[in-house]
Amino acid sequence: MQRYTVNTQKRRELRDVTALVESAITASDIQTGIAVVYSPHTTAALTVNENWDLHVVDDFLLYAEQAVPRGMVGFQHAEGNSDSHILVSLIGPSVALIVDDGRLALGQWQGVFLAEFDGPRTRELWVMISPGT
Amino acid sequence: MQRYTVNTQKRRELRDVTALVESAITASDIQTGIAVVYSPHTTAALTVNENWDLHVVDDFLLYAEQAVPRGMVGFQHAEGNSDSHILVSLIGPSVALIVDDGRLALGQWQGVFLAEFDGPRTRELWVMISPGT
Amino acid sequence: MQRYTVNTQKRRELRDVTALVESAITASDIQTGIAVVYSPHTTAALTVNENWDLHVVDDFLLYAEQAVPRGMVGFQHAEGNSDSHILVSLIGPSVALIVDDGRLALGQWQGVFLAEFDGPRTRELWVMISPGT
Repeated sequence: MQRYTVNTQKRRELRDVTALVESAITASDIQTGIAVVYSPHTTAALTVNENWDLHVVDDFLLYAEQAVPRGMVGFQHAEGNSDSHILVSLIGPSVALIVDDGRLALGQWQGVFLAEFDGPRTRELWVMISPGT
Repeated sequence: MQRYTVNTQKRRELRDVTALVESAITASDIQTGIAVVYSPHTTAALTVNENWDLHVVDDFLLYAEQAVPRGMVGFQHAEGNSDSHILVSLIGPSVALIVDDGRLALGQWQGVFLAEFDGPRTRELWVMISPGT
Repeated sequence: MQRYTVNTQKRRELRDVTALVESAITASDIQTGIAVVYSPHTTAALTVNENWDLHVVDDFLLYAEQAVPRGMVGFQHAEGNSDSHILVSLIGPSVALIVDDGRLALGQWQGVFLAEFDGPRTRELWVMISPGT
Protein backbone atom coordinates (compact mmCIF):
# COMPACT_ATOMS: atom_id res chain seq x y z
CA MET A 1 0.00 0.00 0.00
CA GLN A 2 1.24 3.44 -0.85
CA ARG A 3 0.43 6.46 1.28
CA TYR A 4 0.32 10.10 0.30
CA THR A 5 -0.42 13.26 2.25
CA VAL A 6 -2.73 15.97 0.96
CA ASN A 7 -3.15 19.32 2.69
CA THR A 8 -6.54 20.85 2.03
CA GLN A 9 -7.24 24.56 2.32
CA LYS A 10 -10.99 24.99 2.69
CA ARG A 11 -13.90 23.40 4.53
CA ARG A 12 -15.25 21.89 1.30
CA GLU A 13 -12.95 21.47 -1.64
CA LEU A 14 -12.16 19.08 -4.49
CA ARG A 15 -8.41 18.50 -4.83
CA ASP A 16 -7.04 16.96 -8.01
CA VAL A 17 -4.89 13.99 -6.91
CA THR A 18 -4.45 12.39 -10.34
CA ALA A 19 -0.67 12.86 -10.30
CA LEU A 20 -0.39 11.04 -6.94
CA VAL A 21 -2.37 8.07 -8.24
CA GLU A 22 -0.24 7.99 -11.39
CA SER A 23 2.95 7.97 -9.34
CA ALA A 24 1.63 5.07 -7.24
CA ILE A 25 1.00 3.10 -10.43
CA THR A 26 4.47 3.84 -11.78
CA ALA A 27 6.03 2.78 -8.45
CA SER A 28 4.05 -0.50 -8.41
CA ASP A 29 5.45 -1.56 -11.79
CA ILE A 30 2.08 -3.20 -12.54
CA GLN A 31 1.17 -2.93 -16.22
CA THR A 32 -2.44 -4.08 -16.12
CA GLY A 33 -4.83 -4.23 -13.19
CA ILE A 34 -7.18 -2.55 -10.75
CA ALA A 35 -6.22 0.42 -8.56
CA VAL A 36 -8.19 1.34 -5.43
CA VAL A 37 -7.72 4.88 -4.12
CA TYR A 38 -8.96 5.08 -0.53
CA SER A 39 -9.66 7.83 1.99
CA PRO A 40 -9.05 6.65 5.59
CA HIS A 41 -11.18 9.57 6.80
CA THR A 42 -14.89 9.78 7.62
CA THR A 43 -15.25 13.34 6.30
CA ALA A 44 -13.25 13.13 3.03
CA ALA A 45 -14.24 11.09 -0.02
CA LEU A 46 -12.90 10.10 -3.46
CA THR A 47 -14.42 10.79 -6.85
CA VAL A 48 -13.65 11.12 -10.55
CA ASN A 49 -14.92 14.06 -12.57
CA GLU A 50 -13.91 16.73 -15.07
CA ASN A 51 -10.62 18.48 -14.23
CA TRP A 52 -10.61 20.75 -17.26
CA ASP A 53 -13.21 23.48 -16.62
CA LEU A 54 -12.98 24.13 -12.88
CA HIS A 55 -16.53 25.52 -12.89
CA VAL A 56 -17.62 21.87 -12.81
CA VAL A 57 -16.04 21.53 -9.37
CA ASP A 58 -17.54 24.84 -8.22
CA ASP A 59 -21.00 23.76 -9.36
CA PHE A 60 -20.63 20.41 -7.58
CA LEU A 61 -19.73 22.21 -4.34
CA LEU A 62 -22.68 24.60 -4.77
CA TYR A 63 -25.00 21.65 -5.19
CA ALA A 64 -23.53 19.88 -2.14
CA GLU A 65 -24.01 23.01 -0.03
CA GLN A 66 -27.68 23.18 -0.92
CA ALA A 67 -28.45 19.45 -0.89
CA VAL A 68 -26.64 18.69 2.38
CA PRO A 69 -26.56 21.89 4.45
CA ARG A 70 -24.25 22.06 7.44
CA GLY A 71 -27.08 22.23 9.92
CA MET A 72 -30.28 20.22 9.55
CA VAL A 73 -33.02 20.25 12.19
CA GLY A 74 -32.58 17.10 14.23
CA PHE A 75 -28.87 16.44 13.71
CA GLN A 76 -27.40 15.05 16.94
CA HIS A 77 -23.68 14.49 16.23
CA ALA A 78 -21.95 16.88 18.63
CA GLU A 79 -19.09 17.81 16.32
CA GLY A 80 -21.50 19.65 14.00
CA ASN A 81 -20.14 18.02 10.85
CA SER A 82 -22.85 15.48 10.07
CA ASP A 83 -23.10 17.03 6.61
CA SER A 84 -19.49 15.99 5.95
CA HIS A 85 -20.15 12.39 7.02
CA ILE A 86 -23.29 12.20 4.87
CA LEU A 87 -21.47 13.51 1.79
CA VAL A 88 -18.77 10.85 2.25
CA SER A 89 -21.37 8.08 2.12
CA LEU A 90 -22.99 9.69 -0.94
CA ILE A 91 -19.74 10.18 -2.86
CA GLY A 92 -17.89 7.15 -1.51
CA PRO A 93 -14.77 6.44 0.56
CA SER A 94 -12.85 5.01 -2.40
CA VAL A 95 -12.77 4.74 -6.19
CA ALA A 96 -11.94 1.62 -8.20
CA LEU A 97 -9.88 2.53 -11.27
CA ILE A 98 -8.20 0.67 -14.13
CA VAL A 99 -4.48 0.39 -14.87
CA ASP A 100 -3.66 -0.31 -18.52
CA ASP A 101 -0.31 -0.22 -20.34
CA GLY A 102 1.38 0.72 -17.07
CA ARG A 103 -0.73 3.88 -16.75
CA LEU A 104 -3.91 5.08 -15.10
CA ALA A 105 -6.67 4.61 -17.67
CA LEU A 106 -8.75 7.78 -17.64
CA GLY A 107 -11.11 9.38 -20.11
CA GLN A 108 -9.97 12.56 -21.85
CA TRP A 109 -11.58 14.98 -19.38
CA GLN A 110 -11.30 12.93 -16.20
CA GLY A 111 -9.24 13.53 -13.08
CA VAL A 112 -9.26 11.84 -9.66
CA PHE A 113 -10.31 14.11 -6.79
CA LEU A 114 -10.05 13.98 -3.04
CA ALA A 115 -13.33 15.50 -1.88
CA GLU A 116 -12.67 17.40 1.33
CA PHE A 117 -15.89 18.00 3.27
CA ASP A 118 -14.55 19.17 6.64
CA GLY A 119 -11.23 20.92 6.10
CA PRO A 120 -8.82 22.44 6.11
CA ARG A 121 -6.95 19.34 7.30
CA THR A 122 -3.99 17.13 6.53
CA ARG A 123 -5.43 14.08 4.77
CA GLU A 124 -3.96 10.72 3.83
CA LEU A 125 -4.59 8.95 0.54
CA TRP A 126 -3.99 5.23 0.26
CA VAL A 127 -3.47 3.38 -3.02
CA MET A 128 -3.46 -0.38 -3.64
CA ILE A 129 -3.04 -2.10 -7.00
CA SER A 130 -3.92 -5.69 -7.97
CA PRO A 131 -2.62 -7.14 -11.23
CA GLY A 132 -5.34 -8.07 -13.73
CA THR A 133 -6.20 -9.17 -17.23
CA MET B 1 -8.70 -4.08 -20.46
CA GLN B 2 -11.77 -4.76 -22.55
CA ARG B 3 -13.68 -1.95 -24.25
CA TYR B 4 -17.29 -1.86 -25.34
CA THR B 5 -19.39 0.77 -27.06
CA VAL B 6 -22.86 1.72 -25.88
CA ASN B 7 -25.14 4.04 -27.86
CA THR B 8 -27.58 5.86 -25.61
CA GLN B 9 -30.88 7.31 -26.86
CA LYS B 10 -32.00 9.91 -24.34
CA ARG B 11 -30.52 12.72 -22.24
CA ARG B 12 -30.91 10.67 -19.05
CA GLU B 13 -31.25 6.93 -19.27
CA LEU B 14 -30.21 3.72 -17.51
CA ARG B 15 -28.95 1.13 -19.98
CA ASP B 16 -28.62 -2.49 -18.89
CA VAL B 17 -25.04 -3.54 -19.73
CA THR B 18 -25.01 -6.81 -17.77
CA ALA B 19 -24.46 -8.91 -20.90
CA LEU B 20 -21.39 -6.87 -21.88
CA VAL B 21 -19.84 -7.36 -18.44
CA GLU B 22 -20.59 -11.07 -18.57
CA SER B 23 -18.91 -11.37 -21.97
CA ALA B 24 -15.81 -9.57 -20.63
CA ILE B 25 -15.61 -12.11 -17.81
CA THR B 26 -15.99 -15.05 -20.19
CA ALA B 27 -13.28 -13.61 -22.43
CA SER B 28 -10.89 -13.13 -19.49
CA ASP B 29 -11.05 -16.81 -18.55
CA ILE B 30 -10.78 -15.77 -14.88
CA GLN B 31 -12.83 -18.04 -12.61
CA THR B 32 -12.65 -16.06 -9.36
CA GLY B 33 -11.85 -12.40 -8.81
CA ILE B 34 -12.86 -8.76 -8.86
CA ALA B 35 -14.26 -6.97 -11.93
CA VAL B 36 -14.21 -3.19 -12.27
CA VAL B 37 -16.60 -1.68 -14.79
CA TYR B 38 -15.55 1.86 -15.59
CA SER B 39 -17.03 4.84 -17.44
CA PRO B 40 -14.31 7.04 -19.02
CA HIS B 41 -16.86 9.87 -19.25
CA THR B 42 -17.60 12.75 -16.86
CA THR B 43 -21.34 12.69 -17.57
CA ALA B 44 -22.07 8.93 -17.50
CA ALA B 45 -21.86 6.69 -14.42
CA LEU B 46 -22.14 3.02 -13.44
CA THR B 47 -24.57 1.44 -11.01
CA VAL B 48 -26.24 -1.83 -10.04
CA ASN B 49 -29.97 -2.01 -9.44
CA GLU B 50 -33.12 -3.98 -10.26
CA ASN B 51 -33.48 -4.88 -13.92
CA TRP B 52 -36.76 -6.75 -13.54
CA ASP B 53 -39.49 -4.14 -13.05
CA LEU B 54 -38.40 -1.23 -15.24
CA HIS B 55 -40.48 1.17 -13.12
CA VAL B 56 -37.52 1.08 -10.71
CA VAL B 57 -35.39 2.75 -13.35
CA ASP B 58 -38.14 5.25 -14.20
CA ASP B 59 -38.52 6.18 -10.54
CA PHE B 60 -34.76 6.63 -10.17
CA LEU B 61 -34.73 9.00 -13.14
CA LEU B 62 -37.71 10.91 -11.74
CA TYR B 63 -35.87 11.32 -8.44
CA ALA B 64 -32.68 12.44 -10.20
CA GLU B 65 -34.62 15.04 -12.20
CA GLN B 66 -36.04 16.56 -9.03
CA ALA B 67 -32.96 16.24 -6.81
CA VAL B 68 -30.47 17.53 -9.37
CA PRO B 69 -32.35 19.77 -11.81
CA ARG B 70 -30.65 20.79 -15.04
CA GLY B 71 -30.45 24.43 -14.08
CA MET B 72 -29.64 25.58 -10.56
CA VAL B 73 -29.19 29.25 -9.68
CA GLY B 74 -25.47 29.90 -9.57
CA PHE B 75 -24.21 27.16 -11.88
CA GLN B 76 -21.26 28.51 -13.89
CA HIS B 77 -20.17 25.65 -16.18
CA ALA B 78 -20.77 27.00 -19.67
CA GLU B 79 -21.88 23.72 -21.23
CA GLY B 80 -25.05 23.75 -19.11
CA ASN B 81 -24.66 20.15 -17.97
CA SER B 82 -23.45 20.58 -14.41
CA ASP B 83 -26.35 18.38 -13.29
CA SER B 84 -24.84 15.52 -15.31
CA HIS B 85 -21.41 15.94 -13.71
CA ILE B 86 -22.94 16.09 -10.21
CA LEU B 87 -24.94 12.92 -10.78
CA VAL B 88 -21.79 11.09 -11.88
CA SER B 89 -20.06 11.92 -8.60
CA LEU B 90 -23.17 10.85 -6.65
CA ILE B 91 -23.63 7.55 -8.48
CA GLY B 92 -19.97 6.83 -9.19
CA PRO B 93 -17.68 6.47 -12.22
CA SER B 94 -17.24 2.72 -11.70
CA VAL B 95 -18.60 -0.32 -9.91
CA ALA B 96 -16.55 -3.06 -8.22
CA LEU B 97 -18.15 -6.47 -8.80
CA ILE B 98 -17.35 -10.08 -7.96
CA VAL B 99 -16.52 -12.92 -10.35
CA ASP B 100 -17.26 -16.39 -8.99
CA ASP B 101 -17.30 -19.77 -10.76
CA GLY B 102 -16.31 -18.02 -13.99
CA ARG B 103 -19.44 -15.84 -13.92
CA LEU B 104 -20.54 -12.41 -12.76
CA ALA B 105 -21.91 -12.89 -9.24
CA LEU B 106 -25.18 -10.96 -9.06
CA GLY B 107 -28.20 -11.14 -6.82
CA GLN B 108 -31.42 -12.47 -8.31
CA TRP B 109 -32.88 -9.07 -9.28
CA GLN B 110 -29.66 -7.21 -10.05
CA GLY B 111 -28.34 -5.88 -13.33
CA VAL B 112 -25.42 -3.57 -14.15
CA PHE B 113 -26.42 -0.22 -15.67
CA LEU B 114 -24.63 2.51 -17.55
CA ALA B 115 -26.26 5.68 -16.22
CA GLU B 116 -26.39 8.20 -19.05
CA PHE B 117 -26.85 11.73 -17.73
CA ASP B 118 -26.10 13.81 -20.85
CA GLY B 119 -27.04 11.82 -23.92
CA PRO B 120 -27.76 10.74 -26.44
CA ARG B 121 -24.10 9.87 -27.06
CA THR B 122 -21.79 7.06 -28.00
CA ARG B 123 -20.23 5.88 -24.74
CA GLU B 124 -17.36 3.55 -23.94
CA LEU B 125 -17.40 0.99 -21.16
CA TRP B 126 -14.12 -0.40 -19.84
CA VAL B 127 -13.79 -3.68 -17.91
CA MET B 128 -10.78 -4.95 -15.96
CA ILE B 129 -10.62 -8.20 -13.98
CA SER B 130 -8.14 -9.21 -11.27
CA PRO B 131 -7.94 -12.82 -10.12
CA GLY B 132 -8.86 -13.36 -6.46
CA THR B 133 -9.64 -15.82 -3.73
CA MET C 1 -16.04 -15.74 -2.54
CA GLN C 2 -17.12 -15.72 1.08
CA ARG C 3 -20.75 -15.29 2.08
CA TYR C 4 -22.16 -13.99 5.33
CA THR C 5 -25.70 -13.52 6.56
CA VAL C 6 -26.88 -10.34 8.27
CA ASN C 7 -30.30 -10.02 9.90
CA THR C 8 -31.53 -6.46 9.93
CA GLN C 9 -34.11 -5.18 12.41
CA LYS C 10 -35.57 -1.98 10.96
CA ARG C 11 -36.74 -0.60 7.60
CA ARG C 12 -33.69 1.67 7.34
CA GLU C 13 -30.62 0.87 9.37
CA LEU C 14 -26.82 0.94 9.16
CA ARG C 15 -25.31 -2.29 10.48
CA ASP C 16 -21.62 -2.43 11.33
CA VAL C 17 -20.19 -5.41 9.44
CA THR C 18 -16.49 -4.61 9.96
CA ALA C 19 -15.88 -7.83 11.93
CA LEU C 20 -17.32 -9.96 9.09
CA VAL C 21 -15.05 -8.30 6.54
CA GLU C 22 -12.06 -8.77 8.83
CA SER C 23 -12.83 -12.46 9.23
CA ALA C 24 -13.07 -12.87 5.44
CA ILE C 25 -9.60 -11.34 5.11
CA THR C 26 -8.16 -13.60 7.80
CA ALA C 27 -9.71 -16.66 6.11
CA SER C 28 -8.29 -15.65 2.71
CA ASP C 29 -4.72 -15.63 4.02
CA ILE C 30 -3.99 -12.72 1.66
CA GLN C 31 -1.54 -10.24 3.20
CA THR C 32 -1.83 -7.39 0.70
CA GLY C 33 -4.57 -6.62 -1.80
CA ILE C 34 -8.03 -5.30 -2.62
CA ALA C 35 -11.24 -6.47 -0.92
CA VAL C 36 -14.66 -5.94 -2.49
CA VAL C 37 -17.64 -6.16 -0.14
CA TYR C 38 -20.81 -6.63 -2.16
CA SER C 39 -24.56 -6.54 -1.49
CA PRO C 40 -26.47 -8.90 -3.82
CA HIS C 41 -29.66 -6.97 -3.01
CA THR C 42 -31.33 -4.06 -4.82
CA THR C 43 -32.49 -2.39 -1.59
CA ALA C 44 -29.37 -2.74 0.60
CA ALA C 45 -26.04 -0.96 0.00
CA LEU C 46 -22.50 -0.82 1.41
CA THR C 47 -20.68 2.15 2.85
CA VAL C 48 -17.83 3.19 5.14
CA ASN C 49 -18.32 5.83 7.82
CA GLU C 50 -17.73 6.63 11.47
CA ASN C 51 -18.61 3.80 13.85
CA TRP C 52 -17.61 5.62 17.02
CA ASP C 53 -20.35 8.18 17.73
CA LEU C 54 -23.54 6.46 16.61
CA HIS C 55 -25.24 9.84 16.18
CA VAL C 56 -23.41 9.97 12.84
CA VAL C 57 -25.47 7.01 11.67
CA ASP C 58 -28.68 8.52 13.09
CA ASP C 59 -28.01 11.80 11.27
CA PHE C 60 -27.31 9.96 8.01
CA LEU C 61 -30.65 8.14 8.31
CA LEU C 62 -32.44 11.41 9.10
CA TYR C 63 -30.94 12.98 5.99
CA ALA C 64 -31.89 9.96 3.85
CA GLU C 65 -35.48 10.12 5.12
CA GLN C 66 -35.79 13.76 4.06
CA ALA C 67 -33.80 13.59 0.83
CA VAL C 68 -35.43 10.41 -0.49
CA PRO C 69 -38.88 10.11 1.09
CA ARG C 70 -40.73 6.81 0.82
CA GLY C 71 -43.44 8.21 -1.39
CA MET C 72 -42.74 10.72 -4.16
CA VAL C 73 -45.46 11.93 -6.51
CA GLY C 74 -45.07 9.97 -9.72
CA PHE C 75 -43.36 6.82 -8.41
CA GLN C 76 -44.67 3.83 -10.35
CA HIS C 77 -42.88 0.78 -8.88
CA ALA C 78 -45.72 -1.28 -7.39
CA GLU C 79 -43.78 -2.53 -4.36
CA GLY C 80 -43.68 0.99 -2.92
CA ASN C 81 -39.96 0.86 -2.15
CA SER C 82 -38.51 3.01 -4.92
CA ASP C 83 -36.83 5.12 -2.22
CA SER C 84 -34.83 2.03 -1.18
CA HIS C 85 -33.69 1.35 -4.75
CA ILE C 86 -32.69 5.00 -5.25
CA LEU C 87 -30.65 5.06 -2.05
CA VAL C 88 -28.76 1.93 -3.16
CA SER C 89 -27.67 3.66 -6.37
CA LEU C 90 -26.66 6.77 -4.40
CA ILE C 91 -24.68 4.89 -1.74
CA GLY C 92 -23.48 2.03 -3.92
CA PRO C 93 -23.88 -1.75 -4.11
CA SER C 94 -20.30 -2.42 -3.02
CA VAL C 95 -17.20 -0.88 -1.46
CA ALA C 96 -13.60 -1.37 -2.60
CA LEU C 97 -11.28 -1.62 0.40
CA ILE C 98 -7.56 -2.21 0.99
CA VAL C 99 -5.91 -5.19 2.71
CA ASP C 100 -2.50 -4.45 4.20
CA ASP C 101 -0.33 -6.52 6.56
CA GLY C 102 -3.00 -9.23 6.50
CA ARG C 103 -5.62 -6.86 7.91
CA LEU C 104 -8.38 -4.56 6.71
CA ALA C 105 -6.79 -1.12 6.34
CA LEU C 106 -9.21 1.36 7.91
CA GLY C 107 -8.83 4.85 9.28
CA GLN C 108 -9.08 5.31 13.03
CA TRP C 109 -12.80 6.15 13.10
CA GLN C 110 -13.98 4.04 10.14
CA GLY C 111 -16.21 1.00 10.06
CA VAL C 112 -17.87 -0.86 7.17
CA PHE C 113 -21.67 -0.73 7.16
CA LEU C 114 -24.42 -2.65 5.44
CA ALA C 115 -27.01 0.03 4.67
CA GLU C 116 -30.44 -1.55 4.96
CA PHE C 117 -33.06 0.52 3.15
CA ASP C 118 -36.03 -1.91 3.07
CA GLY C 119 -35.81 -4.17 6.09
CA PRO C 120 -36.13 -5.93 8.30
CA ARG C 121 -34.77 -8.75 6.16
CA THR C 122 -32.16 -11.47 6.06
CA ARG C 123 -29.35 -10.11 3.89
CA GLU C 124 -26.29 -11.69 2.34
CA LEU C 125 -22.88 -10.06 2.22
CA TRP C 126 -20.30 -11.27 -0.29
CA VAL C 127 -16.55 -10.67 0.01
CA MET C 128 -13.86 -11.22 -2.63
CA ILE C 129 -10.15 -10.48 -2.22
CA SER C 130 -7.52 -10.06 -4.94
CA PRO C 131 -3.82 -10.05 -4.02
CA GLY C 132 -2.02 -6.79 -4.75
CA THR C 133 1.11 -4.74 -4.35
